[in-house]
Amino acid sequence: MKVIEKIQQAAADGRTAFSFEYFPPKTDEGVENLFERMDRMVAHGPSFCDITWGAGGSTADLTLEIANRMQNMVCVETMMHLTCTNMPVEKIDHALETIKSNGIQNVLALRGDPPHGQDKFVQVEGGFACALDLVQHIRAKYGATLEAYTNDLAYLKRKVDAGADLIVTQLFYDTDIFLKFVNDCRQIGITCPIVPGIMPINNYKGFVRMTGFCKTKIPAEITAALDPIKDNEEAVKAYGIHLGTEMCKKILASGIKTLHLYTLNMEKSALAILMNLGLIEESKVSRPLPWRPPTNVFRVKEDVRPIFWANRPKSYITRTLGWDQYPHGRWGDSRNPSYGALTDHQFTRPRGRGKKLQEEWAVPLKSVEDISERFTNFCEGKLTSSPWSELDGLQPETKIIDDQLVKINQKGFLTINSQPAVNGEKSDSPTVGWGGPGGYVYQKAYLELFCAKDKLDQLVEKIKAFPALTYIAVNKDGESFSNIPANAVNAVTWGVFPGKEIIQPTVVDSASFMVWKDEAFEIWTRGWGCLFPEGDSSRELLEKVQKSYYLVSLVDNDYIHGDLFAAFKEL
Amino acid sequence: MKVIEKIQQAAADGRTAFSFEYFPPKTDEGVENLFERMDRMVAHGPSFCDITWGAGGSTADLTLEIANRMQNMVCVETMMHLTCTNMPVEKIDHALETIKSNGIQNVLALRGDPPHGQDKFVQVEGGFACALDLVQHIRAKYGATLEAYTNDLAYLKRKVDAGADLIVTQLFYDTDIFLKFVNDCRQIGITCPIVPGIMPINNYKGFVRMTGFCKTKIPAEITAALDPIKDNEEAVKAYGIHLGTEMCKKILASGIKTLHLYTLNMEKSALAILMNLGLIEESKVSRPLPWRPPTNVFRVKEDVRPIFWANRPKSYITRTLGWDQYPHGRWGDSRNPSYGALTDHQFTRPRGRGKKLQEEWAVPLKSVEDISERFTNFCEGKLTSSPWSELDGLQPETKIIDDQLVKINQKGFLTINSQPAVNGEKSDSPTVGWGGPGGYVYQKAYLELFCAKDKLDQLVEKIKAFPALTYIAVNKDGESFSNIPANAVNAVTWGVFPGKEIIQPTVVDSASFMVWKDEAFEIWTRGWGCLFPEGDSSRELLEKVQKSYYLVSLVDNDYIHGDLFAAFKEL
Repeated sequence: MKVIEKIQQAAADGRTAFSFEYFPPKTDEGVENLFERMDRMVAHGPSFCDITWGAGGSTADLTLEIANRMQNMVCVETMMHLTCTNMPVEKIDHALETIKSNGIQNVLALRGDPPHGQDKFVQVEGGFACALDLVQHIRAKYGATLEAYTNDLAYLKRKVDAGADLIVTQLFYDTDIFLKFVNDCRQIGITCPIVPGIMPINNYKGFVRMTGFCKTKIPAEITAALDPIKDNEEAVKAYGIHLGTEMCKKILASGIKTLHLYTLNMEKSALAILMNLGLIEESKVSRPLPWRPPTNVFRVKEDVRPIFWANRPKSYITRTLGWDQYPHGRWGDSRNPSYGALTDHQFTRPRGRGKKLQEEWAVPLKSVEDISERFTNFCEGKLTSSPWSELDGLQPETKIIDDQLVKINQKGFLTINSQPAVNGEKSDSPTVGWGGPGGYVYQKAYLELFCAKDKLDQLVEKIKAFPALTYIAVNKDGESFSNIPANAVNAVTWGVFPGKEIIQPTVVDSASFMVWKDEAFEIWTRGWGCLFPEGDSSRELLEKVQKSYYLVSLVDNDYIHGDLFAAFKEL
Repeated sequence: MKVIEKIQQAAADGRTAFSFEYFPPKTDEGVENLFERMDRMVAHGPSFCDITWGAGGSTADLTLEIANRMQNMVCVETMMHLTCTNMPVEKIDHALETIKSNGIQNVLALRGDPPHGQDKFVQVEGGFACALDLVQHIRAKYGATLEAYTNDLAYLKRKVDAGADLIVTQLFYDTDIFLKFVNDCRQIGITCPIVPGIMPINNYKGFVRMTGFCKTKIPAEITAALDPIKDNEEAVKAYGIHLGTEMCKKILASGIKTLHLYTLNMEKSALAILMNLGLIEESKVSRPLPWRPPTNVFRVKEDVRPIFWANRPKSYITRTLGWDQYPHGRWGDSRNPSYGALTDHQFTRPRGRGKKLQEEWAVPLKSVEDISERFTNFCEGKLTSSPWSELDGLQPETKIIDDQLVKINQKGFLTINSQPAVNGEKSDSPTVGWGGPGGYVYQKAYLELFCAKDKLDQLVEKIKAFPALTYIAVNKDGESFSNIPANAVNAVTWGVFPGKEIIQPTVVDSASFMVWKDEAFEIWTRGWGCLFPEGDSSRELLEKVQKSYYLVSLVDNDYIHGDLFAAFKEL
């Protein structure tokens, strides 16, 4: 979706829009940390995020890669900066083609700073002299949404006339100058949204360097307030939050309803300001669907997914990248056979998560009881990582049933995915709600687990007394048992909203389950076993379990009167 | 669907399949009566119905037309008879092409009787000599499902080998002979289903004529039982029901699970036998969906319709005949613009209904109060017909809210369509259930009504206090008011079933409503006004109402806590 449309939609809904800006970190670890931070910040529902281009195109490849992951893995509407510095038109077009094919629709067109070591901007051979040329080129060739940074007013008007949809200002600390600027723009006929760029002060030295660089005016009272606390980093941060909050209040009071936050890749100050303004709440994370919906323009209508990848959404995205259409409204048969093959990609993980797993799961395993203990501890919240999850700990809704999960894990039914039954809860319920207020949401209770063959036999026998239970079980080699037709598709999460068709974002289908089972079994070795040295006996035990256990998917279709865990009693 | 598949499916489900055979009536009125009878009989869920070809092809065109209406209007799986008598291959192919394009997949291939006035069958020039040739021709050219009547056993085997999927016997009254025949067939390797043809004895003379014609053996005890009562028509009928029931019991006890009933276009005896056998129940009419699903092979996946035509399903079918795909799972935008234009077809009605309307609605109308009284009487059950309905009286579910409907009709809100809210009732509930047992069904309360502009204004004002209510109102000229987006689609009936995606068979969408409103307004004159002589003042009053009233569609989206009728209090 285009940023201008998101801003217009927020305006139509009477909401204040906000956005976060990041820059490409210098190290791999920095990049991984940035994505974890983004994940947390995006949960608060920014209208979009943007990533800078780096001086003189020095970070071009990294910026392109980060933009791609932002749009497609973090699933936030992404705007990529693009400058003219050192960029002949072929390089510009390469960058634009890349983001277009990655489903990104927003570019912030800039002239850019002079090349490194020079004082004045020099047009590169075969390149553009100014942002206006760049805007015209992009509009003519790609029609993407464009932003323009402020500059000379008349020149700014020409950029808007050339096709820029909105304006983001450089950082400033004198709010009156900003408001005058907005007024001046309106006077000469610039009607598009003008978004103030807010940079919370994080530390004194950085603040002085940055404001000097940008030649922005600092009101005397800010200098006066900072001077006595400049050596106290905490005090500077606290003042930065206070100042940012006051500036935003004044801006919002003037009628402007969009805020852009320069985060400098930091989380706390930006979020603190938004909380002070009442735009976000710690506990109230917005969920348009039970899983974070895609922003990629090619898959933006996608609203149905199999439940199996619920804890591995990034893996799901990579394995369905090649689809030319995504299920909308219902899960079509046509989608089944076309999952991408498993590659290393689905098993690599950010460093932080790898470290956590090593600590929590690479403990000596002497018996299946030791294995079962890991799963039990995870359900008890003693562990926050799991080889079968890209997420931190149990999901909030899973905590509703954690006692029961602990009990069946202790019995050797090793759960990797679950959801409680929900019978018409309000759609803004903090634990199970999604889709915004005014609707009702439903879930069928779901359990997915590994177990030994004898446990499976007992369970299957027991299930005969529970006609509302449907299951599929399969081992690594594909031997399977089931009490449902092979082509059945079971909606296990759905919502009813005013004036809408029924939304059913999560399904259980056998065909996808058979694709998922390869991934789920592979994790025994490539997700867990790999944490032990080669030849280690723990590793051998995991391989044995991988070869002999069954993966079981279990649905209680009676979401009104059923009790899925009753089937495990006396087993 | 093919008849053989329906029989196999019934066998897989452990159900007994039954079917009804009809013949083309001689008069137009007879045809209309037959369709009303079929409608009632099909509500009991026969696997299929068939229509005979008529001696020597004399009823060919009528049979083709009746078969078409059976498949597409009555919506029952239809098998058409086809004989060789007087039928050169072009005529055969014309008949087969016609039924194929009408979505019919079943043919009963017969040699047929000798041409009128001749004793022996004569092959027509360019035609077929026997049913075997006809079977081979149809199989080679069309691949339709075929039945074969019994004849010489070895020859029968050849017909089955040539592609006949199942066998229906001629009528018989000696059950032992039938059971021996089945046994003989099995001995020579005929493995397909063999369906007994049962003809209930309705009157003595007809029985004697028919059995003489068919040269079938009458057991002595039947002759003995009939002889003393042969002049008492009621007693003969009662005996016919008793005999049919006993024959069927013996046949079912032998393991055969399919019964074919020769109805001779009569209803009571056939239904009475099925009731005696416990195969149907007076009160328990099977509803796979809230509306009768299509059997036409081209629209067999259709499972979503707008609610507007709920009481005019035949009109809906004719106006969507041209669609090349039907909504499945959800209501796609693509369907909206392609409704067929209104023609006389949507306003013609069977003679019986026309007479009823004349009696009930062609009463002098002096004021809008007189008009309102018709609607009120209909909701009270005092009238059983309505110009806005193809059906008899109020639907069972509507009776749940008839008191409330009466009240608002008295206030001048003239209702033509409605449903009560349903919050998770069992799917086999007799009033609101559909889709078979094991699921839960839901409805949003719905009202559709005509009212004057001042009433509309009051209602719209009142609705502001009910945030869960959505509405669209429009007059004949297309001036409209609404509180929902123009492209919104609201699911108002849905069901949740084990192992399935959510089924949402009824929706409210603005685009279809705008198509429907032309039909709804047109009924004021072409459905009601036309009952009065030209120039009659009642007719003029109806035209005035047609020109000035608004059609309002109203949904209460809160199916759990809402009360749609509360909006009408104090109006």
